[in-house]
Amino acid sequence: MKALVFDRELNYSECEPIPAPSEGEALIRILMAGICNTDIEITKGYKGFKGILGHEFVGIVTEINDKDQSLLGKRVVGDINCSCNNTNCEYCNKGLGRHCPNRTTLGIFKKNGCFAEFITLPITNLFEVPETISNQLATLTEPLAAAFELLEQIIITRNDEVLIVGDGKLGLLINHALSTTEAKITHVGKHANKLNLIASNRCQTFGIENMPEKKFDIVIEATGSMSGFQFSLEHTKPRGILALKSTIAADQKIDLAPVVVNEITIVGSRCGLFNPALDYLETGVDLSELITGIFPIERGIEAFETARSKGSLKVLITFDQKKPNYKFTEQLHKSQSIAP
Amino acid sequence: MKALVFDRELNYSECEPIPAPSEGEALIRILMAGICNTDIEITKGYKGFKGILGHEFVGIVTEINDKDQSLLGKRVVGDINCSCNNTNCEYCNKGLGRHCPNRTTLGIFKKNGCFAEFITLPITNLFEVPETISNQLATLTEPLAAAFELLEQIIITRNDEVLIVGDGKLGLLINHALSTTEAKITHVGKHANKLNLIASNRCQTFGIENMPEKKFDIVIEATGSMSGFQFSLEHTKPRGILALKSTIAADQKIDLAPVVVNEITIVGSRCGLFNPALDYLETGVDLSELITGIFPIERGIEAFETARSKGSLKVLITFDQKKPNYKFTEQLHKSQSIAP
Repeated sequence: MKALVFDRELNYSECEPIPAPSEGEALIRILMAGICNTDIEITKGYKGFKGILGHEFVGIVTEINDKDQSLLGKRVVGDINCSCNNTNCEYCNKGLGRHCPNRTTLGIFKKNGCFAEFITLPITNLFEVPETISNQLATLTEPLAAAFELLEQIIITRNDEVLIVGDGKLGLLINHALSTTEAKITHVGKHANKLNLIASNRCQTFGIENMPEKKFDIVIEATGSMSGFQFSLEHTKPRGILALKSTIAADQKIDLAPVVVNEITIVGSRCGLFNPALDYLETGVDLSELITGIFPIERGIEAFETARSKGSLKVLITFDQKKPNYKFTEQLHKSQSIAP
Repeated sequence: MKALVFDRELNYSECEPIPAPSEGEALIRILMAGICNTDIEITKGYKGFKGILGHEFVGIVTEINDKDQSLLGKRVVGDINCSCNNTNCEYCNKGLGRHCPNRTTLGIFKKNGCFAEFITLPITNLFEVPETISNQLATLTEPLAAAFELLEQIIITRNDEVLIVGDGKLGLLINHALSTTEAKITHVGKHANKLNLIASNRCQTFGIENMPEKKFDIVIEATGSMSGFQFSLEHTKPRGILALKSTIAADQKIDLAPVVVNEITIVGSRCGLFNPALDYLETGVDLSELITGIFPIERGIEAFETARSKGSLKVLITFDQKKPNYKFTEQLHKSQSIAP
């Protein structure tokens, strides 16, 4: 089958074997998949992963190795963490399979990912996608779930002033997730064109150079950079909360003294539950502006180059034989080479 | 008056002027004061403070510049943060004067400290010390309050397994504070003689070299070192809490990726409320083993040298003309030069 395989470098291959579903697993034909910053980090060596990349997808269940065949033929998205589900696993027992110490992770750790015509996943990881949600938007379920994870971890009330730091695709999805709260939201970033995408929401935006010296009750770090972390820490009130949504590169110097002196709480936040994300997509919200381009799998290397390029937001890979009919946002993408 | 003054180097002086209490302040004659690691850090340049050091004390109120004279002649301890108490101060209004952005801090920031015969503090900062608490133990109120701060910030239940990392004086006081909870406590450190001081409590102890590979629900970092932080992070469960009780030196490299991946919550924790600490001391608990030695103010430089030396715990400075009659723990201090 066709796939994007990473082994020291990223290559397009047509010779990958179609995987066989183990007991309790489904075989899924991928319709569309999304490139995440984690994928880009893996191509730089993060986690030491080798194999087929990709963990954001929508697909059709074509085979199930289980007596429960209810999802056969359905269009699904799926949780990327494959937990052990042993009765004596502390995390699986708590419904926190995404922290199971024995888990594998789609396209990230010990399990081939979704930049391929087929993947396997446990049927317990799968969620049927409502008909009203397009393939493009369904592909955003996984990163949107990561954004909604914040609402599972932090109580955000109408009295809270919240700052989102970073206007990349994760920052913009977080803005969507937090728009479902009653908090006062401020969003700061480096890219006027990206900040414009959220200016219409009930939210103040600032370019980083114009940011006032204000401190916030809750700050969400979504840049993944050391300077973003320092900026976020400086804008968190004493006794406030700083949520880290992006893994910050190792081997950088951090002064944690202000965390102690100002008694700040730092909350690490990663993958989330799919249901709140699907519920939000089902409201008919338009996230199409977050999609920079769609490439066929055969041009996956070019898709990665676009995803890495400055100003890019979400880049999708399609496995449809039909030419996708997606309309691109002219203002944002006029300098991008969009395919096909 | 006699005092220990820091200005690039620490000196003993007999020529410092006795401070005059401002409106709402008391003049306090110091009976005894304790050396904290923060004092030692200040002598290395932390916070850029210049003036009289010291913020842990017990003393007698000798004068009050206020119509409320109720504390005159009383033996008191005092909160080190002098807040603005303005009606429009967000923090003072919430009872969080210790985070007031306009505060001064005794012996640390813009206010002379207690390694001196007299200090001034607002009367609202003062707490009368019950008669049953000795001067030595009363001097431990401030650092003990910092230990009890954890219980104000984190809900610790009988189901929690808690690890305390670090067997310095703060770590040992934290052990005392947490002994008032029902949690299962493990304490890890580098010094067998210090760990022996807590081995009698309802608590498991491990030398760092024998620490099992277990992860804990709640980990308290009390070493202030980068290696202690990394060790603490490695022993925190996914979705667990890592409390930072010590400011960790700046300019060190930290990999925060595990915080995000394992969704760990880091809680910075500094000064605490005095009442829980005084209540605990009033139970008659014996903390005398934590005191390495008592020096008269005239030998304050020697007191600092002892406080800096390996194996040292709390070193006190006395202003009493009488020779203190403190009994030292032989096993712990046999290699120390104890005075007077």
